[in-house]
Amino acid sequence: MKRPANDGDNTTGMKALVYQGPGCRAWEDRPRPTIIQATDAIVRVTTTTICGTDLHILKGDLPTVTSGRILGHEGVGVIEELGTNVLSFHKGDKVLISCITSCGRCSFCRKGMYSHCSTGGWILGNQIDGTQAEYVRIPYADTSLYALPAEVDDEAATMLSDILPTGLECGVVNGQVKPGDIVAIIGAGPVGLAALLTAQLYSPAEIVIVDLDGHRLEVARSLGATKVVNSSDGKAVDRIMALTYDAGVDVAIEAVGIPTTFDICQSIIAPGGRIANVGVHGKPVEFHIERLWSYNITLTTRLVDTVTTPMLLKLVHSGRLDAKKLVSHRFELSEILKAYDIFENAAKERALKVVLKNTSIM
Amino acid sequence: MKRPANDGDNTTGMKALVYQGPGCRAWEDRPRPTIIQATDAIVRVTTTTICGTDLHILKGDLPTVTSGRILGHEGVGVIEELGTNVLSFHKGDKVLISCITSCGRCSFCRKGMYSHCSTGGWILGNQIDGTQAEYVRIPYADTSLYALPAEVDDEAATMLSDILPTGLECGVVNGQVKPGDIVAIIGAGPVGLAALLTAQLYSPAEIVIVDLDGHRLEVARSLGATKVVNSSDGKAVDRIMALTYDAGVDVAIEAVGIPTTFDICQSIIAPGGRIANVGVHGKPVEFHIERLWSYNITLTTRLVDTVTTPMLLKLVHSGRLDAKKLVSHRFELSEILKAYDIFENAAKERALKVVLKNTSIM
Amino acid sequence: MKRPANDGDNTTGMKALVYQGPGCRAWEDRPRPTIIQATDAIVRVTTTTICGTDLHILKGDLPTVTSGRILGHEGVGVIEELGTNVLSFHKGDKVLISCITSCGRCSFCRKGMYSHCSTGGWILGNQIDGTQAEYVRIPYADTSLYALPAEVDDEAATMLSDILPTGLECGVVNGQVKPGDIVAIIGAGPVGLAALLTAQLYSPAEIVIVDLDGHRLEVARSLGATKVVNSSDGKAVDRIMALTYDAGVDVAIEAVGIPTTFDICQSIIAPGGRIANVGVHGKPVEFHIERLWSYNITLTTRLVDTVTTPMLLKLVHSGRLDAKKLVSHRFELSEILKAYDIFENAAKERALKVVLKNTSIM
Amino acid sequence: MKRPANDGDNTTGMKALVYQGPGCRAWEDRPRPTIIQATDAIVRVTTTTICGTDLHILKGDLPTVTSGRILGHEGVGVIEELGTNVLSFHKGDKVLISCITSCGRCSFCRKGMYSHCSTGGWILGNQIDGTQAEYVRIPYADTSLYALPAEVDDEAATMLSDILPTGLECGVVNGQVKPGDIVAIIGAGPVGLAALLTAQLYSPAEIVIVDLDGHRLEVARSLGATKVVNSSDGKAVDRIMALTYDAGVDVAIEAVGIPTTFDICQSIIAPGGRIANVGVHGKPVEFHIERLWSYNITLTTRLVDTVTTPMLLKLVHSGRLDAKKLVSHRFELSEILKAYDIFENAAKERALKVVLKNTSIM
Repeated sequence: MKRPANDGDNTTGMKALVYQGPGCRAWEDRPRPTIIQATDAIVRVTTTTICGTDLHILKGDLPTVTSGRILGHEGVGVIEELGTNVLSFHKGDKVLISCITSCGRCSFCRKGMYSHCSTGGWILGNQIDGTQAEYVRIPYADTSLYALPAEVDDEAATMLSDILPTGLECGVVNGQVKPGDIVAIIGAGPVGLAALLTAQLYSPAEIVIVDLDGHRLEVARSLGATKVVNSSDGKAVDRIMALTYDAGVDVAIEAVGIPTTFDICQSIIAPGGRIANVGVHGKPVEFHIERLWSYNITLTTRLVDTVTTPMLLKLVHSGRLDAKKLVSHRFELSEILKAYDIFENAAKERALKVVLKNTSIM
Repeated sequence: MKRPANDGDNTTGMKALVYQGPGCRAWEDRPRPTIIQATDAIVRVTTTTICGTDLHILKGDLPTVTSGRILGHEGVGVIEELGTNVLSFHKGDKVLISCITSCGRCSFCRKGMYSHCSTGGWILGNQIDGTQAEYVRIPYADTSLYALPAEVDDEAATMLSDILPTGLECGVVNGQVKPGDIVAIIGAGPVGLAALLTAQLYSPAEIVIVDLDGHRLEVARSLGATKVVNSSDGKAVDRIMALTYDAGVDVAIEAVGIPTTFDICQSIIAPGGRIANVGVHGKPVEFHIERLWSYNITLTTRLVDTVTTPMLLKLVHSGRLDAKKLVSHRFELSEILKAYDIFENAAKERALKVVLKNTSIM
Repeated sequence: MKRPANDGDNTTGMKALVYQGPGCRAWEDRPRPTIIQATDAIVRVTTTTICGTDLHILKGDLPTVTSGRILGHEGVGVIEELGTNVLSFHKGDKVLISCITSCGRCSFCRKGMYSHCSTGGWILGNQIDGTQAEYVRIPYADTSLYALPAEVDDEAATMLSDILPTGLECGVVNGQVKPGDIVAIIGAGPVGLAALLTAQLYSPAEIVIVDLDGHRLEVARSLGATKVVNSSDGKAVDRIMALTYDAGVDVAIEAVGIPTTFDICQSIIAPGGRIANVGVHGKPVEFHIERLWSYNITLTTRLVDTVTTPMLLKLVHSGRLDAKKLVSHRFELSEILKAYDIFENAAKERALKVVLKNTSIM
Repeated sequence: MKRPANDGDNTTGMKALVYQGPGCRAWEDRPRPTIIQATDAIVRVTTTTICGTDLHILKGDLPTVTSGRILGHEGVGVIEELGTNVLSFHKGDKVLISCITSCGRCSFCRKGMYSHCSTGGWILGNQIDGTQAEYVRIPYADTSLYALPAEVDDEAATMLSDILPTGLECGVVNGQVKPGDIVAIIGAGPVGLAALLTAQLYSPAEIVIVDLDGHRLEVARSLGATKVVNSSDGKAVDRIMALTYDAGVDVAIEAVGIPTTFDICQSIIAPGGRIANVGVHGKPVEFHIERLWSYNITLTTRLVDTVTTPMLLKLVHSGRLDAKKLVSHRFELSEILKAYDIFENAAKERALKVVLKNTSIM
């Protein structure tokens, strides 16, 4: 469908998904964002998606998100307007929006730790308005957007905003997955599956995935898991130890964010192994250092830096990585409330990533 | 003093420090060890020392150590006898005894993780008789002993059996200490001081050391700490955060082994920082993953592998590392019970490493 | 076929492929090898193969190989006899023979550089008799043989003696192949194809392979090359630069061993790239440091260490790596002279690896 | 001395050292630079220095440098004026000028390879006017300048513009200098001495330095070389091999830039060693790959990226690194022609780094 000519409201207003306090969301009219700093870009959103974190926000779990905030930190779009100091893009360029805003100048950015950028980090759909809208303002556009080749599918690219770099950086890279390793991934939700897909880039010998949900385990198997373990009987540790002839696993990736799943990781890790935490935790965990002090293990935490986005983009572009496999549902952007309903009942709805497309203004 | 001629008992008996159950130790007559396997060596011990772990054993904390065991896993000596398959040494060679026995063949040894050698690891003075004796049997001599150049002082070399590789591998290497880093070491006992000495090999900008004991902090300052923090008022965290302008430290080395000191580490670590655990823990710790999940930190545990022993030996040999600085007291081997008394009251006696020399049979 | 009962000659004699001076080889009777050192094993060879290096030896190019030497440094077999100090194997065990003999004790072995073992390294079929025989003596058996699971195919395993670890270690690991990289492999002979197979373990975006032979390029394509370049017109550099939009490649793997192919590597390497030499060179090369001094490149050389053999074995065992793809021809061991003829005319015969099976004594 | 009030010419003119074609330089009047892009800064130069590269330029060796160019790519100064998009600095801030201009946005900058920044790199005093002037325009100021703490001495800081990061990154970091290593540095000019100073940050056991000039070798000894070798008799290789008991060195740093010194490096490198090229070469070298193919060596080239500048600044600030040791002569900026005369006769004048101070406008 052709984009309508500029006619009054259409050029200044837009629709957006707005957080209205715990439990409340609305698809409402909002003014379009405008350039605030010379390094900003305004992006017309063509594809976006919902993250598990958005559900946490809606529960009121994140005090940094206040009522009135437009949610969303993932997406693909087209440059609509540029600040005078954006050097790398032109109006009309197709771009991938990173969930992490990076100034490119601070000491954290200079060492590749964009997640802790002193004036950026994860701010989209959190401290500033996000991507679940027709338009979004992206600060530090030069270093927070990526040019998208025409051949790359929008849906696939949207998986590079957050979910795939998160699985890769927090899980696979931090877990130092190597050819021949035995890897266990605890949790077969979208982020666990993202770890599963990207772990295969390093050719482990085995990838065991653990979840309570049989359907997700089936999906995991279809995405490359060599063994699946249903943990609903509380015997996941025993099963994994048996699978490894009591040696334990080289890498345990925690992709849930609760003490129980963290416990599985510390119970199955082999001497010399790596526990890579991906899950967002709300409570402390008991770390069994009285046993593990002599185990030569490495435990890592990380907020995704999206430093691997350019590399993932090359892999998607060359056809080596099929990022679309994570998408289970597709909706018009205007149907986003329905999409949220589906995503909130992910197990029942057999939902992985739910993609929203804004075809009305293309 | 010249070694006496072979006369009966002298060739078959020896004196040794024997664990006799919780709280009990004795300096008693024992038969000399003999070659059991072709890869064994019998070493006449000329210098040994006491480890903090020996005190734990004496308290009965280590179930692997049974009554009747000769203690000790550190020392220097002279090859007295060799199994037929020891290829690297000759009778009369001066050798450094590693605290870790390594077969050199198993998959752990082949990847440099000697601590988890499938038939070795830390067994000396634990599962087999140790070095606090006139003679000791060393299994897998080719890969568990190091030739000692004549110029290297015995006392200095004894510090390479365990304490310096432990500080270096578990603390400094695992903590990835780099030039310009701010390093905090929690605990100024021998192992904390070993971390302090070896951290300087990598030129951090600052080394802050924390302890309850003013004397140890003074020693630490003389050994290269740039800042010292007395934690007896419970305000160590506040002080370190103030010293770093609230940025936290790049590396926190836990060199005590209790929840309180682990807590200091997790409270002062900067985003992107490394917590390297050296301490032997008897209880789990509460890990504040609800705060640290997004901190991009790395937490490591390790039983020393002694893979750095050859490197440390080069540094001691070339004069770049003054390992003797860790020695506070010296005794004849026959005075070992007295040495234990001193070492058990380390704070009061201002004891660091207590060296035992066997001059009677040299 | 059942192995004949011990009857005189059968227990002391064997057949072997013997180098008899430049240009001469014979399949002749030789005494069976016997245990010389307690760390030796005698292996009954069930599968072996011919290496390009064997052809060099036959030309008289290697002064270390003297007339009368049994050739061969690759193979799979069964333990026939063990020295008293071999701890890891039993008679009858199926084993993979590494082309590199490693004592496991010297400083080179202790840092994983088995190729430079002070009493081992590449000695099989070079300084001592090799594997192209019914029996072979393997020194330092504990650290030079690998236990072979029953499920692993002999042919596949034989590819792990030399060719696959060489392609992987000298080419892929030294070239630091990473996900998303553009890799060029110069030479599509067996070692170039081994680099091609193992490069895919790290998921590069593109693998361009260069050769003069159209058939080999076809094979390369079927083994995973994404682009092939026939260099017979002397325009390989231009083509690769065009393929990379003049950016050059991230990794250039030299798998031939002559100045011309080395030149291609240094002409196509991107700033920050790695040139990994695998080829055995007989002449110096001109290195264009007047251009490359500012290119931030890394150039590596390496004799295979076979440190990756255990990892490759896991990948073959788990089905992730199909090592048999490198085998083009199969013969009885007794037909080895014919196999040499084929292998010497590899291009014409479309030969890759030529496998010899000793079924007569199984 | 107080800075004069703004009075006509003083605010628009300045003095600068200008290249006027091969062999010609002049200290002449030039207009002050002005902001061209919003990311620029104008810096009042308070300290600068002369690089060996400047001498090459004066010989006409660098075609990128055209007549009329103001030379110089090192220095310290004070922010005089800022483009509207410089976010990290304020007028009056004391800053260190990096010899490498980095946009912070391109793919090379994002991976820390600032030397190959697509619109920056080494352009100062090369493709744009440089620092040997009263004022200089610095593009991409946010990512090409470093805030200088008041306590850091200007002279010391000036050594961080180029010479120390060059010795460190191209020589020491690329050479992977580790504790216990034997390091050889070929060339005791300023950049060799910079490698010498920074190599010590990683505690090698020995640092052997080679030069033709006895005085420079004396200086090297005073700066930490443990052995010095005068190569004027052509026997440097023999001497170094003798010093290492024919084992060769772990790291050879080429700090001259001619085939003879490159040859020394490839002749003395041990198996497993690293050759790190720092020198700027004008001719190809013969690389003895016919011998080194099996040596497991790594050879690197690099144009300094100045990624280590923040780290070096911390070390200078904390007193761990005495960067001023490289300064041999000091002049007023207005005496720069005299300074060039001295620096051109470095051996005779016993000159290392020659510092120019602009006290007239402080």
